[in-house]
Formats: sequence, C-alpha cells, structure tokens
Amino acid sequence: MAATAPTVSLSLDEVHALAAGCLAANGCDAENARAVADTITAAERDICLSHGLFRLPGYVASLRSGKANGRAQPVVEDLAPGVVRVDGKGGFAPLALEAGRAPLAAKARSQGVAALALNDIHHFAALWPEVEALAEQGLCAFAFTAAFPYVVAAGGRTPIYGTNPMAFAWPRPGRAPLVFDQASSALARGEIMIAAREGHAVPPGTGIDAEGRETTDPNAILDGGAQLPFGGYKGASIALMIELLVGALIGDRFSFEALAVDNHDGGPPKGGELMLAIDPARFGDPENFAAHAELLFGRITAEEGVRLPGDRRRRNREVTAVDGVQVDSALHAKVVELAGG
Amino acid sequence: MAATAPTVSLSLDEVHALAAGCLAANGCDAENARAVADTITAAERDICLSHGLFRLPGYVASLRSGKANGRAQPVVEDLAPGVVRVDGKGGFAPLALEAGRAPLAAKARSQGVAALALNDIHHFAALWPEVEALAEQGLCAFAFTAAFPYVVAAGGRTPIYGTNPMAFAWPRPGRAPLVFDQASSALARGEIMIAAREGHAVPPGTGIDAEGRETTDPNAILDGGAQLPFGGYKGASIALMIELLVGALIGDRFSFEALAVDNHDGGPPKGGELMLAIDPARFGDPENFAAHAELLFGRITAEEGVRLPGDRRRRNREVTAVDGVQVDSALHAKVVELAGG
Repeated sequence: MAATAPTVSLSLDEVHALAAGCLAANGCDAENARAVADTITAAERDICLSHGLFRLPGYVASLRSGKANGRAQPVVEDLAPGVVRVDGKGGFAPLALEAGRAPLAAKARSQGVAALALNDIHHFAALWPEVEALAEQGLCAFAFTAAFPYVVAAGGRTPIYGTNPMAFAWPRPGRAPLVFDQASSALARGEIMIAAREGHAVPPGTGIDAEGRETTDPNAILDGGAQLPFGGYKGASIALMIELLVGALIGDRFSFEALAVDNHDGGPPKGGELMLAIDPARFGDPENFAAHAELLFGRITAEEGVRLPGDRRRRNREVTAVDGVQVDSALHAKVVELAGG
Repeated sequence: MAATAPTVSLSLDEVHALAAGCLAANGCDAENARAVADTITAAERDICLSHGLFRLPGYVASLRSGKANGRAQPVVEDLAPGVVRVDGKGGFAPLALEAGRAPLAAKARSQGVAALALNDIHHFAALWPEVEALAEQGLCAFAFTAAFPYVVAAGGRTPIYGTNPMAFAWPRPGRAPLVFDQASSALARGEIMIAAREGHAVPPGTGIDAEGRETTDPNAILDGGAQLPFGGYKGASIALMIELLVGALIGDRFSFEALAVDNHDGGPPKGGELMLAIDPARFGDPENFAAHAELLFGRITAEEGVRLPGDRRRRNREVTAVDGVQVDSALHAKVVELAGG
C-alpha cells in the first residue's frame, strides 16, 4: 500500500463490479454480493483503503471455509416499540444493516429514540457507513461492535476486549453529516499488521509484548502480546461498555467468545452490533437544532489547522468521483484471481 | 486535601445535615437542599472528595449570586413515547434528575430504550449517581453533560469543549452496578487546580500553555492555556459528540455558550444533560443477559491486579458506612461559616 507501489486505475463502478463479481464467484447470492460491494466501494471512494478491496480476501476466506453464509436472508423482528432486531443468519453485516435501517429510522421518528440489535452477523467493514446513512435521513446515530480479543483491560496484560469501534453521526441538512468512527484500541490492528509487514515501529502506547512490557515492535504485539486501549483506562472503559452492549445486552458474543468458536480462516468474527438512532426533531429544539450545531462547527473550524472528524473522507470522495481510485496492483491481481478471472 | 492535613470526623448523616443546612441557609428550599445534600453525601460516602463537601462553596456562590435558583420546581414534560424532558427552571441538577428518573425508567421499560433531556440546570456533581440509580432498577444507562470551554479540539490550541463527562452503568442483579464516569479531558480540572495549589506538576499530556506548547505546569494550563482531551483526537471526538448531544440535540448550551453568559461566581455553568436508558429485558436475551455479563466480568477480574471500573468507590462505601468520613478541617470550617454557624 506504499505510495510508490504500482497501481491499477479503476472507476468506482469498476471497483463495485470487481468486488461483486468476486463475491458472487465465491458463493454470495446477488443481494449479498451487491451489499458487501457497496460497502467496499464506499470505503474505496473515501480512500479508507483498509476497509476497501483490501478486505475482499477475508470475505472470500469466510465464504470458502463456510463460516459466513453468502446467501443469508436477514430476518427483521420487532422486539419493542423502540427496539428492532435483525437476525443476520450468519451472513455478512451489510445486507442485515440494510434490512434494519428503515425500521430503525421509523422507530426513531415515532419514539424519539430507538435501537437496532443485529445478531449473528460477520462485520468486516468500518462502522461509519451505517451511521452516515441514518444521519443522511436527519437522525443522530451511534454504532458499536466487538471483534476478537486484542486489547487489555485497564491494568491488565491479557488481551480480552476487541478493538471495539464506536461510530457517531450528526445530521447536517444540505451537507454531508458529521461522522466519526474510532477503535477503542490506541491503533487500528490493520496498522500494526502493515507496520509488521513493512518492518517499521509503531507509536509508543500501541501495545505490549508477551511479558507485558510496552513495545513499539509490531511483531512483539502481534506474537503473544496485546494492544493497549486509547487514552489508558478511559479507552478501556469504552471497550468494556461496547462488549456489554453487543454481547450481554443484545444476546450475542463477547470478543473472547467469538475467538473461542472461530475457525481462524482470516475472515471476520461472528457476533453482533448495536445501533442507536435519535430524532432531534422529537427533542426540545426541533426548529433550530441543525443551525445550532453549525454554530459550534463554525467555531471549531475557525481555528487554523482544525478540521471536523470525517472531513478528509468527504474531500476524498469529491476527488474519487471524478478520478476513480488507484488500487495496489498486487491486491488487484489477488482479487482477480479470487474471482476466478 | 493532602493526607497529613487535619481532619474532622463525621458520620454520613452528619455530612448530610451539614450540607443541607448550609444550602438551606443560603436560599435553597427543603427539597432542593435535601437533593443536593444527597448527592454530596453520596460522593463523600464513596470518597470522591472532589464532588463532596468540596463543592459546597461553589453551590453557595451560585445561590448568593442569583445564578442558580434554590427554589426551582422542575417541570416534567412528555416529548415523545421515548423522550421525557425536565425543565430544571434554573435550579441545581439533583432535584431535576429525581423528577426525571421514574418517567425515564418507565419509558425504557415500555419502549426498550428512552431518553431524558434535562434543560436549564446547573450540574456541579459527578454523573455516576444518576446512571447508578437507573442500573439499580435493572436498566443500562448513559449520561452526558458539558461544562465551560477548557479543552481544545483535535489539532487546536483554543479551549472550546468542556471537560464533558460521560457515565455508563450496567445492572448487576443482587450486586452494585458496574459504573464508570469519565471526563473527556485527559485530567479532571479539579486535579489541575489542586496541583496548582500544592505546587506540583501535572502528567504529560494534560494541557498546553498560552502559546500552545505542551506543559506540565498546572498554572500555565489554567492561565491562558488549555486542557488536552484524553487519548488525542479520539477523546476530542467524544467531547464533540457530548457538546452536540447536550447542546444542539436537546436545545441547551454548548460549553462556550455557557461561559459567554456566566457571571463568574465560581459555581457551575447553566446547561443541559442527556441520559439514555435501555432495558435489557426488551432485547434478544432477556433471561440470560445478567449472567452473561458476569462471565465477562469474571474473566476480566481473573487477571491479577485488574479491577472493574467503580470497584474502589464500592469498597469505599463499605468502609464509610461504618467509620464515617474524614473531612479536611479547613473545608469543614469554611462550610460551617457559609452555613452561618
């Protein structure tokens, strides 16, 4: 993925066709292939390379190993006036998220706040697409999911929490929503893996080795060591909260439970996701909430060098819509090979 | 507050009577004095000294200056099936929180998830009491509030966000709930003020001076400098999220707006708070969610030296229930003086 590596130039439509074709060739039905390809294409569009075509080999591995169901038909169930559940039936997350989106939005509008519990899915993407989609409908949204156990508890040296991301989106009528999506670990696991492959150190605070000593050696973190949460015990608290929300609350797997039953095919864990959606129009300032938020955004960005979360992604998509994307040639060849092409 | 300072020994009942009497002598009606004294006593009970009697001079300052209404009668309003609002009428937060608790819990049980928006309150306490109270009723709860602008945005050097705490509680039937309550700043502002008073440095990463340089000098942070968020840009994202939730969403003040209209009496800002409550019994694992969570807690605490968030507070309350508390003599004398005694 280094800037000097040879690349293949693709339009976003070509990215989508390549991804969907590869998934279909490995056992996805048309709807699942399209939904996963949508997510991959959105990541490439925003130049979030770690969640773009880079993920396809993992998706394919879980299709081929039988861990993930490429033909899953998600089932929507109403659990309470403010709660909708989607049983993902062992498939990848994108189609289950699509199935839950309209009922979640409808419940948020009618109740003011609502939850979407997704069970039995394999999440292998970023969380920002799902919160952004809700915010584009005028809702404030949260998403949480777990992973495999990579991160220590506060004061511990045994990996127990996932890199557990949380995402948040705020609607900005007439503009792209404000969105952030951040792991509970100090560094994303993918970045540690890339550092190991490229032979460079990771920043201090990223992880510990097998003896519990802080290290900047990515291999020591990956081989029997553990990742550290962001911001010390506060990040660990957030990782713990996310385990509770997506494990105990919705009746799905903690990160350590996902690992215990995994087949180690290199694909995503099986687990759950929680989303919350809030309709600002049902709170105390329905006429003015959007303009009020813009006051804050204006004040933040008035300072030189300060951007809002997600700004880089939003600018990237303006460029890639015109110029398409540059895909690492080795990755492109790998995907073509996996597609049987 | 140093361990060697002279202290006065008080029972928790004496703490409560002292606090309530002091508040009543300065303009609180009986209900408001009792509610604020409950919060102060809970903090002393858990040996959270920064939110105990230590706060009384600030409460009194805002009563005497007329900023806070000591006779506020909170008004509860139903905004949506999942949303209840309490207009605090310019009073302190505790009585408004009490007024909102039962409707919030009832809505969470009937809808699955619900929100409580508190407007026009002065919050000068920790957030853990309100989430703990919900969790004691079997609910999972969140709380968020803003403050005055003390913390920079990611990449910035101008204070714009409050120290914006978020609290979370998980119910543990038959046991005290799991609770955490953490500021979005790297260090609590009170700890920086104590370091300045006692003449010692603060940890690296706490803040910057007026020229934007990182410093461990608490005076440089307090005098024209700014606090840093915990965990870099990720903590800043959480601070921003909280501004949006308690400012734009519920129609109340951002931290910078609270400062702009403050009278600088040393008491709390006027602003809002958001709580969310979730009933795990309305999700996918109603019979088993509590036992499932205990599996995780058991795994976390099986590691030597690892505690769950809030464990220290829970142990402290066992001690203080029997032994009472030791109050700094100078603080005790100050409170007695403020009470007109």
